Amino acid sequence: MTVKETCLKAKEHSGEIAFAGEDKMNMMLIAAAHALRDHAGYIIAENQKDVDACTRGPQFADRLMLNEKRIDGIAAGLEKLVQLKCPVGEVLEERELYNGLHLRRVRVPLGVLGIIYEARPNVTADAIGLAIKSGNAVVLRGSKDALRSNKAVTSVIKNALRESGFDPEFIQLIEDATHEGATEFMRMNGIVDVLIPRGSASLIQNAIKNATVPIIETGTGNCHVYFENTADISKAIPILINAKTQRTSVCNACESLLLDEEFAGKHLKEIVSALQEKNVEIVACERCRKFMPELAAATEEDFYTEFLDLKISIKIVDGVDEAIAHINKYGTHHSDSIVTENEQAADKFLEMVDSAAVYVNASTRFTDGFEFGMGAEMGISTQKLHARGPMGLKELTSYKYQIRGNGQIRG
Amino acid sequence: MTVKETCLKAKEHSGEIAFAGEDKMNMMLIAAAHALRDHAGYIIAENQKDVDACTRGPQFADRLMLNEKRIDGIAAGLEKLVQLKCPVGEVLEERELYNGLHLRRVRVPLGVLGIIYEARPNVTADAIGLAIKSGNAVVLRGSKDALRSNKAVTSVIKNALRESGFDPEFIQLIEDATHEGATEFMRMNGIVDVLIPRGSASLIQNAIKNATVPIIETGTGNCHVYFENTADISKAIPILINAKTQRTSVCNACESLLLDEEFAGKHLKEIVSALQEKNVEIVACERCRKFMPELAAATEEDFYTEFLDLKISIKIVDGVDEAIAHINKYGTHHSDSIVTENEQAADKFLEMVDSAAVYVNASTRFTDGFEFGMGAEMGISTQKLHARGPMGLKELTSYKYQIRGNGQIRG
Repeated sequence: MTVKETCLKAKEHSGEIAFAGEDKMNMMLIAAAHALRDHAGYIIAENQKDVDACTRGPQFADRLMLNEKRIDGIAAGLEKLVQLKCPVGEVLEERELYNGLHLRRVRVPLGVLGIIYEARPNVTADAIGLAIKSGNAVVLRGSKDALRSNKAVTSVIKNALRESGFDPEFIQLIEDATHEGATEFMRMNGIVDVLIPRGSASLIQNAIKNATVPIIETGTGNCHVYFENTADISKAIPILINAKTQRTSVCNACESLLLDEEFAGKHLKEIVSALQEKNVEIVACERCRKFMPELAAATEEDFYTEFLDLKISIKIVDGVDEAIAHINKYGTHHSDSIVTENEQAADKFLEMVDSAAVYVNASTRFTDGFEFGMGAEMGISTQKLHARGPMGLKELTSYKYQIRGNGQIRG
Repeated sequence: MTVKETCLKAKEHSGEIAFAGEDKMNMMLIAAAHALRDHAGYIIAENQKDVDACTRGPQFADRLMLNEKRIDGIAAGLEKLVQLKCPVGEVLEERELYNGLHLRRVRVPLGVLGIIYEARPNVTADAIGLAIKSGNAVVLRGSKDALRSNKAVTSVIKNALRESGFDPEFIQLIEDATHEGATEFMRMNGIVDVLIPRGSASLIQNAIKNATVPIIETGTGNCHVYFENTADISKAIPILINAKTQRTSVCNACESLLLDEEFAGKHLKEIVSALQEKNVEIVACERCRKFMPELAAATEEDFYTEFLDLKISIKIVDGVDEAIAHINKYGTHHSDSIVTENEQAADKFLEMVDSAAVYVNASTRFTDGFEFGMGAEMGISTQKLHARGPMGLKELTSYKYQIRGNGQIRG
C-alpha cells in the first residue's frame, strides 16, 4: 500500500473506533495486552532481527531492544488505560440560545492521529492504546531500524482485535521507510487530522518544516532551575541534583542553572561540588568564573543547548526579572523552576515564565502525564496551540457543536 | 522594518498586553473606539486612495470601502468587547498531587497572533480588539490593496493607546506587501505562536502549504442541508431558503441540498420553485433529473464546490447513512443540517457528521460567534486541532501549569 492508501484506510475505518463506546474500547485494550504477552516470543524474535541489523551503537540498540520484561510493561500500560475514563462524548457546554436553539458542545475524537517516531517499538503499542481509548484511528510511522519490531507489535494487536470480533483497520502502520514516504505522510491534509512527532529535536524540526497537516510540537526541553536570593539551600541542591541527574536523557531534565549573584557568592562552591559528585560537566558564565576560575567557560550556544547528558550550563543573573527574560529567550517553553522563599518572586516567576509547566520549589522532572495524574501521555507539547504540557486522553480529542431547533432561520 | 523585525517587536512587547489585566484592556478598547470615530475623516481619506487605486471590480471595492457608518460599526464592535469577560487567568483546574505538589492549570494568552487577510480593513480593527481582550500581541498582514487603509486604522488605534498611557507596540502591521514577505511571515516559528488566515479558500490553502507556524484553518464552508424522509416541508423549505439565500457570500451558507427519494417524489417541484423564486441556479444529480429533466446536470466537481453565490447542487440519497457519508466526503466540516421528524435519524446525524456545527431542524446560518453567544469571533475554524467552529476570546488562549512545592523531587 502507498502512504496515501494506508492513511485513507485508517480514515475509512475511523468510525469503528470513534463510535465504539467505552466498553468495546476496554475489551480491545485487554485483548491487545493479553496478545502481547502471549506472543512475546514472536515479537522478541522479530525485534532481535532489528537489533542484529542495528549498526548505530549500544545506546541506540538498547532503546530498540524488547525483552519479556519490557513487553510485560507495555502490556501493563495498555491495561492501565482501561481504568481511565474515555473522554469521548463528554458534554463540555450546554445552553439555550436566545432563539430557542439548544446548543451542546460535545467532546469528539480528533479523527486520525499520525504518529512519526524513532526506533522505540514501545511507542507503537503505547500510541495504539491511547488512540483506542480516545476514539481515534492511528497511522504509525516508526523508523526503518525498528520496522520488523513495529510490524510484529502491530500485527499481534490487530490479530487480537480481529479475533475478539473487532475490525482493527483503524490501526495502520506505514511500511514505506523512505524519506519521501515520511514527507508524503506529513502532507495528508484532509485525511490525517494531526501529526505528533515523537523523538529527537531533529525529527521534530523536520516535521515542523515539512508538515502541512497540523502538528503538535513535543518534547524538546531546555529546562531551567533558578536559585533566587532567598532560596533555601537545603531544598535548592536536592532539586537541582534531581532535575539534572535523576534521568538525563529526558525532556524534563534540567539543562541550565541560573542563580542570583549574592546566592552564588554564598553557595556556588557547594553547588558545584554537589554536581561534580554526580559527574556533571559544568560550563559557566564569566561572572561565575570570577568566583571559580577553574570552571570551563560557557558559550552563548551552550545556553541554547539541551544537553540530554551529564552536563549543565550555569549563569549568574540579577534577580527574578533577568531570570525570567533569560528563560523566555533561551528556553524551549517546557519546564522551569524557581527555588525561593520570596512569595512575590515566586508569583512573578509563575506568571511570567512562558513555559508549559512552571514550578516553585520543586524539580522540573514532574512534567509528565503520570505525575500529573493523567494516567498516560502521548508526549509533552511545547507549543501553545491545542495542548500544552503532557498530552493525555483529553488532549487527543476535539469537540463539535450539536444544535437542535424546530425550524429556526436567521433573521 | 523587515517582516522578522516587525514580528519580533510584537513579541518583545507582548508582556504589556498579556499582563495588562482586564481594566487596562477595557481602557484600551474604549480609547481605540473613540479614536476611530474621532479620526473617521482621516481614515476615510486614506481608504479612498485605496478604493481609487482598486482595479478589481465593484464587489471588491465595496468590501474595501470604509465610510462613517462602517467605521462607527467597527468602533461599536470594540466597545462590545468591553462587556465580554477577559479569559486570561481563569483557573481551569486545581488539585493536589499525591506528593503534595499543588497544581493549577491557568488560562494564558497564546502570545503573538499572526493574522493574514484580504482587502477588508474592518478585519484590522476587529483583530486588534480581539487581541487586546484576549491578552495577545498581534501582527497584521492585510492585502496590498488595503495597505493605506490598514495603516490609517492601525496608527489611529496605536496613537490613541499611546495617548492613554499605554505602549501600543504589541500591535504591529506588516507593510511589506510582497509575496515573499507573506511567506516569511508564515515561518516566524518561535516568534509568532499561531497564524490565522482569514479570507478566500486560496488564501487559506496558501497558508496551509507554506506556513511552518501552527495555523488555524478557517472559514471554507461547503455546507449541506439534508431533507430526511420524515421532514416537515413547512420547516424544510424556509430552512433551505434561509441557509442558501439569506447571505450567499458567507461560509455558513448552504451550497448543497441532499434529500431522500420519497421526499423528492413528493416535494422536489415545490423545492425547486422556492429556490427559483429566489433566483437560485440549480445543478442536480441524475436521479433528480428523472423527476425534473429540465434541471441542469451537476458534475462531480459541483458537489465539492463552495459556490458562495445564488447557486446550489441537489442530490438524492438513500437515507441518513448515505447523507452522512456524502457530507463527510464532499463537505468541508463546517456546518450541516438535517431536517427530520425522526429522532433516531437526528441523533445519528448529530453524532456522525464530522463537522464543527451540526444542526437538526435549523438553518446552517447560525454558525457564528455572535449567534453562539460568544460576543465576537476571529473566524470559524474548520480544523479539529485547538478550536472548532467560531473562535471567540477563549479560543485565542492557551494554558500553562503552575505548580507549587516545598522541595519535592522525583523518586
